[in-house]
Amino acid sequence: MTYCLAMLLNEGVVCLSDTRTNAGLDNISKFRKSFTWEVPGERAIVLMTAGNLAITQAVMGLLQENIENPQPGIETLFSATSMYRVAEIVGDAMRVVQGRDGPALAQMGESSTASIIVAGQRAGGRPRLFHIYAAGNFVEATADSPYFQIGEHKYGKPIIDRVITVETPLKTAVTAALLSMDSTLRSNLSVGMPLDLTVIRTDEFRISEARRIENDDPSFDALSKGWSAALRRSFDEMDALWN
Amino acid sequence: MTYCLAMLLNEGVVCLSDTRTNAGLDNISKFRKSFTWEVPGERAIVLMTAGNLAITQAVMGLLQENIENPQPGIETLFSATSMYRVAEIVGDAMRVVQGRDGPALAQMGESSTASIIVAGQRAGGRPRLFHIYAAGNFVEATADSPYFQIGEHKYGKPIIDRVITVETPLKTAVTAALLSMDSTLRSNLSVGMPLDLTVIRTDEFRISEARRIENDDPSFDALSKGWSAALRRSFDEMDALWN
Repeated sequence: MTYCLAMLLNEGVVCLSDTRTNAGLDNISKFRKSFTWEVPGERAIVLMTAGNLAITQAVMGLLQENIENPQPGIETLFSATSMYRVAEIVGDAMRVVQGRDGPALAQMGESSTASIIVAGQRAGGRPRLFHIYAAGNFVEATADSPYFQIGEHKYGKPIIDRVITVETPLKTAVTAALLSMDSTLRSNLSVGMPLDLTVIRTDEFRISEARRIENDDPSFDALSKGWSAALRRSFDEMDALWN
Repeated sequence: MTYCLAMLLNEGVVCLSDTRTNAGLDNISKFRKSFTWEVPGERAIVLMTAGNLAITQAVMGLLQENIENPQPGIETLFSATSMYRVAEIVGDAMRVVQGRDGPALAQMGESSTASIIVAGQRAGGRPRLFHIYAAGNFVEATADSPYFQIGEHKYGKPIIDRVITVETPLKTAVTAALLSMDSTLRSNLSVGMPLDLTVIRTDEFRISEARRIENDDPSFDALSKGWSAALRRSFDEMDALWN
């Protein structure tokens, strides 16, 4: 399993992913699921992946291959003229990989399901956030629904639903993302540390922050414990409300 | 969908269920999912149901039929000599109904999945809590895992995992159950008001509290709003912890 969460705010974009992958409960590995590209001052892009690891690695590989060995007429994450085009390029790469590997996987009764979150900003445009499906089609986040989750989304959703709007300060959104992840880590063993946190602040056109949060990170540990303590204090307040 | 939650505490048993059922998103109804039986001073039993409504109604109907038209040699919820026997009787009724309806449902490609929570206390025994599966087999809650959820369990699980142990005071457990339900109601439209709350206090051998919580219940509304407010205040505290 996987849990990736991306939020689109007026102040920028917050992306958070775990690193656990598993082929069955008895075969657990660690793979990065967040990938970034930037041309400082011009564009900053984050992709996060969930689903069949061979599929998502192939999509990332194809996107990177096209950057490193540019072909005339083939647009890349670095040459795309808008974030919308970036989403289309990622969707097209998904279709290429699904076309290559999907039928053989289906024949084996294996799933090729995968999804990718695309977030970022390019000079001339605003920050944008997309959710690319296995068929290569995609939806875009709006002020009404300013966040996307892929993978194990349920445990960490209530906390986000209660707090996040496009007006939420970026710092608070980071806290909410970490607490959403903390709830998921506690309840689903197939989501695991370390975490990758990526922040792109509006109009900075760079990866403003890229931080790997290890298992023994003292800030995350303090946050996790602080949140448990705060919830317990809040419970005591709530007891007085229920008669 | 459905959300039912039962907790086994030193002070007693707390059961909470929603009332929404749906056959597809466009066919939503309201059905009670909590059922109680008591012989004051001798036994108190709560059953909560999830899954195929025809299956769970048939199980409840069969259990009630055996009470109203007692047959020699057929044990009922009222004559069972222990809560363990109650769990077996419910499991047996599940098997009878699955045997009657399961094959025809399977032939139509329909699911006969269902699960039932059994909670209660009989004189001479301690309060006990069981989770009956569609095959009629069951597991029992212990001090290590003192609660069961059936139906849409994910949204409301983190809050329970953080708070509930067998030592949790019953009043606090009720609050936690209501907040767990509140989180689920917010995130899954197929779980809906009103709610049925049932409490059996240890050694009272009666349904200590049976309360239907309607959509406009002022206490539940205050709890829901108070919790949102408390979470927001807690966030502000958390912001200071993350650097």
